[in-house]
Amino acid sequence: MTVSREIRLKSRPVGTPTADNFELATVDLSEPGPGEVQVRNSWMTVDPYMRGRMNDMRSYAPPFQIGEALQGGAVGEVVASNDPSFKPGETVQSFFGWREAFNAPAAAVQKLDTHGLPPQAFLGVTGMPGLTAYVGLLKIAALKPGDIVFVSGAAGAVGQIVCQIAKIRGHTVIGSAGGADKIAYLKEIGVDHAIDYKAERNLTEALMKASPEGIDVYFDNVGGEHLEAALMAAKPFGRFALCGMISQYNATDLGPGVRGLILAVGKQLRLEGFIVSSHGDMMPAFLADMSQWIAEGKIKWRETVEEGIENAPAAFLKLFKGENLGKMLVRLS
Amino acid sequence: MTVSREIRLKSRPVGTPTADNFELATVDLSEPGPGEVQVRNSWMTVDPYMRGRMNDMRSYAPPFQIGEALQGGAVGEVVASNDPSFKPGETVQSFFGWREAFNAPAAAVQKLDTHGLPPQAFLGVTGMPGLTAYVGLLKIAALKPGDIVFVSGAAGAVGQIVCQIAKIRGHTVIGSAGGADKIAYLKEIGVDHAIDYKAERNLTEALMKASPEGIDVYFDNVGGEHLEAALMAAKPFGRFALCGMISQYNATDLGPGVRGLILAVGKQLRLEGFIVSSHGDMMPAFLADMSQWIAEGKIKWRETVEEGIENAPAAFLKLFKGENLGKMLVRLS
Repeated sequence: MTVSREIRLKSRPVGTPTADNFELATVDLSEPGPGEVQVRNSWMTVDPYMRGRMNDMRSYAPPFQIGEALQGGAVGEVVASNDPSFKPGETVQSFFGWREAFNAPAAAVQKLDTHGLPPQAFLGVTGMPGLTAYVGLLKIAALKPGDIVFVSGAAGAVGQIVCQIAKIRGHTVIGSAGGADKIAYLKEIGVDHAIDYKAERNLTEALMKASPEGIDVYFDNVGGEHLEAALMAAKPFGRFALCGMISQYNATDLGPGVRGLILAVGKQLRLEGFIVSSHGDMMPAFLADMSQWIAEGKIKWRETVEEGIENAPAAFLKLFKGENLGKMLVRLS
Repeated sequence: MTVSREIRLKSRPVGTPTADNFELATVDLSEPGPGEVQVRNSWMTVDPYMRGRMNDMRSYAPPFQIGEALQGGAVGEVVASNDPSFKPGETVQSFFGWREAFNAPAAAVQKLDTHGLPPQAFLGVTGMPGLTAYVGLLKIAALKPGDIVFVSGAAGAVGQIVCQIAKIRGHTVIGSAGGADKIAYLKEIGVDHAIDYKAERNLTEALMKASPEGIDVYFDNVGGEHLEAALMAAKPFGRFALCGMISQYNATDLGPGVRGLILAVGKQLRLEGFIVSSHGDMMPAFLADMSQWIAEGKIKWRETVEEGIENAPAAFLKLFKGENLGKMLVRLS
């Protein structure tokens, strides 16, 4: 019998989540039943979007249930199999994150050919965050030659990839992040203008100083003032890919609102929200491009790693304090 | 020699314009020079978008100049011609509104075949407002079968056409307007749910009551609370055609902002601003469809008419008080 520790939702956060909203529990796993596999997770991801699932509100994903283990992306190794399609030792990915080990129907886990990359890359650069960057930039914002690209949360899991795809395509890139370490990283990955938003009094002025002629594309991970600045700086026919608004996820009401939206009329702007799971059709093209870019040394990435399932809530909470550089991960074994 | 009275911009409005921002002037017109025509206007249009041109701010159209006649759509009759392509008595349209008569190069006026319609229809239903409705609904919002359509400013020049095109296409239409006369008119043109926003305490609740399942398309003429309600009520993959935001045109600062924009991410909404002049390519299709709909009796329209050039500023000011039902026009001769 295998023992697994897991993180459960203890109570729904009101506003910014705290450690008290989570609880660590231990479960005993039986041997996998017919058609099942048992997997020991090596890595799990924490992502800002999980905050939304902690509310008891219908959205694109169902809410997490109180008293149950949270869910999310994970990679791990098959340790026992009662299904002919899996063998112990195989690397797999699943949505059974937030736990050390689990039994699941074979159809609920996917074999992972890492192509020589570390497996946790498939929770980041070659996984959902990477695909999010690719879809948002190329499909939603419909990047075209000559576009000047502004990215907020530029040193985060998604943002770091957005910046580099845009640079590979030959664009001028303006990236916003908070703090000297992140700004240094943005310069390292070739961002043309790195804005430390924590050091700026007026984000619009900083943006217009970086690009006096304005911006064509805005990849929004932050919302709020960043979105307002992008509206002000947008050139006619600008396109905004609304990927996330981390500044708003812990709001307990609708907040002060986004000013300047009227500019979208006269400038003929397009603002479009998207969820990566609606664009799975782009996965093959993404993996082909991304594999080549990585092989050519054109894409770098950073990870911020917490150790052990007991620290998964802390890793999650750090996302909202901006304490991650690149992809935030939890190493489980 | 011909005498013409015209309305000039006396001072730039700060906030809501007043009569003091305009002045009536008289000019003497010489005989038209070589290649010129002289036109006596019969009708001119006042439109909310003109408010933007009264600010000294670069936008999609250059600002009006202080001390000069305003500009805008007009229809009239050629009274003298010094160009072989025009003859006295011909009906023409131009952008030389806000004046009783004018001389202009022949290339700056267009002959108008009214096809038996009153000429002022080409300042409304078969003109720019009609094309705006057509472009916004069919191209920007990409109307598709089964969409539930919400229109604000539904009894205005553009809104009344949006409602009816959507009804012709078989859609459920929710229209918002202020006051009993407008609500009665919306019912007359077949709107399924007419919301008197002045009588509602909570616009979102009124909208959700009209359509408990939500809306797919929002045609925005108003902005502000209407836009917020549409964000709340939007179904996944909803599309917003941002045509105008009359509630914001007189704001002296960026105002309180639009709340709930974060919903655009999870619901994967697309919000797109547009200016009809960027979509002139749709004019032939619009005129073909609109002519047929009018011939079949499927499109009605209303006009609110002020008499005489001296009342043009008052007509314009009434737009911001919602005192027009349908297209606001000024009859000049």
